[in-house]
Amino acid sequence: MIETLTIVGVGLIGGSIGLAAKRHRLARRILGAGRQSPTLERARTLGAIDEVATDYLAAVQASDVVVFCTPVDRIAEQVLAAGAVGRPGTLLTDAGSTKAAIVEAVEGRLPAGVTFVGSHPLAGSEKRGPEHARADLFDGRLVIITPTATTPTAAVERTQAFWEALGARVRLMSPAEHDAALAVTSHLPHLVASALAGVLPDSLSELTATGFRDTTRVASGDPELWTGIFEQNRRAVLDSLTLLTERLGAFRQALDSRNHEALHDLLAQGKRARDALGS
Amino acid sequence: MIETLTIVGVGLIGGSIGLAAKRHRLARRILGAGRQSPTLERARTLGAIDEVATDYLAAVQASDVVVFCTPVDRIAEQVLAAGAVGRPGTLLTDAGSTKAAIVEAVEGRLPAGVTFVGSHPLAGSEKRGPEHARADLFDGRLVIITPTATTPTAAVERTQAFWEALGARVRLMSPAEHDAALAVTSHLPHLVASALAGVLPDSLSELTATGFRDTTRVASGDPELWTGIFEQNRRAVLDSLTLLTERLGAFRQALDSRNHEALHDLLAQGKRARDALGS
Repeated sequence: MIETLTIVGVGLIGGSIGLAAKRHRLARRILGAGRQSPTLERARTLGAIDEVATDYLAAVQASDVVVFCTPVDRIAEQVLAAGAVGRPGTLLTDAGSTKAAIVEAVEGRLPAGVTFVGSHPLAGSEKRGPEHARADLFDGRLVIITPTATTPTAAVERTQAFWEALGARVRLMSPAEHDAALAVTSHLPHLVASALAGVLPDSLSELTATGFRDTTRVASGDPELWTGIFEQNRRAVLDSLTLLTERLGAFRQALDSRNHEALHDLLAQGKRARDALGS
Repeated sequence: MIETLTIVGVGLIGGSIGLAAKRHRLARRILGAGRQSPTLERARTLGAIDEVATDYLAAVQASDVVVFCTPVDRIAEQVLAAGAVGRPGTLLTDAGSTKAAIVEAVEGRLPAGVTFVGSHPLAGSEKRGPEHARADLFDGRLVIITPTATTPTAAVERTQAFWEALGARVRLMSPAEHDAALAVTSHLPHLVASALAGVLPDSLSELTATGFRDTTRVASGDPELWTGIFEQNRRAVLDSLTLLTERLGAFRQALDSRNHEALHDLLAQGKRARDALGS
């Protein structure tokens, strides 16, 4: 059991970590830190945290584990600031959707005894705020942990145990491998959904049905958060976008040349891939 | 009340028309026709039709209203064949996802007294078969009716009353206007979802979460049906694909040039458009 757990950024993910930690009795005390006091107060009312930490660095100093659930472009500096005041033995981890830039910015810059291990729970939604947090958000979901050659094994094991205690399954990958994979499985879908929503004229809104709505759902995500994600994973997102535009080009080619068989093959391949994922 | 209603093609849409017609007591007798006897028998067992019509043309001859819920590339020839045997006063309509090619192929070729009015209910899913039919599928949903200058007003009114009796709202559009709109609101999302599913390597399946699944859900639709839809609406689909690839190009440009503001604006526009549709 963790004596004191601090969650920095108590929105949907951070709030769910708090609720899950309480349900599984993972921490004796859960502190919530962040910039917006009203959000923290709501998180406390909802039972996701025990106390609002008004002095963020004092909270870190008192903590055994600190989880950063803040926008990806802020995590590295917050980890470094926390590391500077953390006690030996403090484990720092995060829930950011990109890993390479964060891990690289932190690597080798923490004082002895304080360790950062990058994490990314593949769970969440386009919604925001602790109101949408759920104690079962991580049940059976995958969390990717991205240690490097210099990460102490004990810290990797603690991080793994942390997420497993919240109900998740864990898989280890390198930060670069994570970012290349997530560019395809998460960042590209967001980009495509946003682009598709963006070409819909207002006059056609009434003519959309479930197909358009499902395909564009994630486009409701916060533009600020997603700008950060795209920027941090710029190269891999561009590569995944090239893959997609090539495939769209194959569709165009098949339509242009009235190639029935090619069009059917492309659609059949898409169906096979999608059917394999389940509902 | 309709004396005899024949549904040609009793899958998800045709079966739902049958169930809704029964619930709303719209027809005294509902016949189901189609190529696959097992499907028709299942539809009868499920209560979507009263009788399986083994002799399709005899069924049409006995019908006041015939609805074609078959693949778009077969509707026109079926309507023409039905028209040749239909009694004066018979109303023929359909549920196809494209309209211009069908309406054009039928226009001016039906005997006097038999009328075809194109319809497209904006309802359905990626699933198939009468097992997925629902009596409430059309409740509050939009059905687009596409009369031409030569369509008798009385036939338009009968078609409108038919769909409204099933619970739907009706809107009139020209066939070309319908096809241009649906290219953006339905056919393009399908193409994009299929392309996105198609770029996912098997090895990354485990790393997909709700974002990828929502964005690609419709890619599970039947490739045969969708090849027909894309071919019938080829020009408008290509135009909508151009709009999308231009917008993807704007994303690429913003990423390539590290233009934070442009990237944020694109994402904010997508969010606004998606938020306006509701959940």
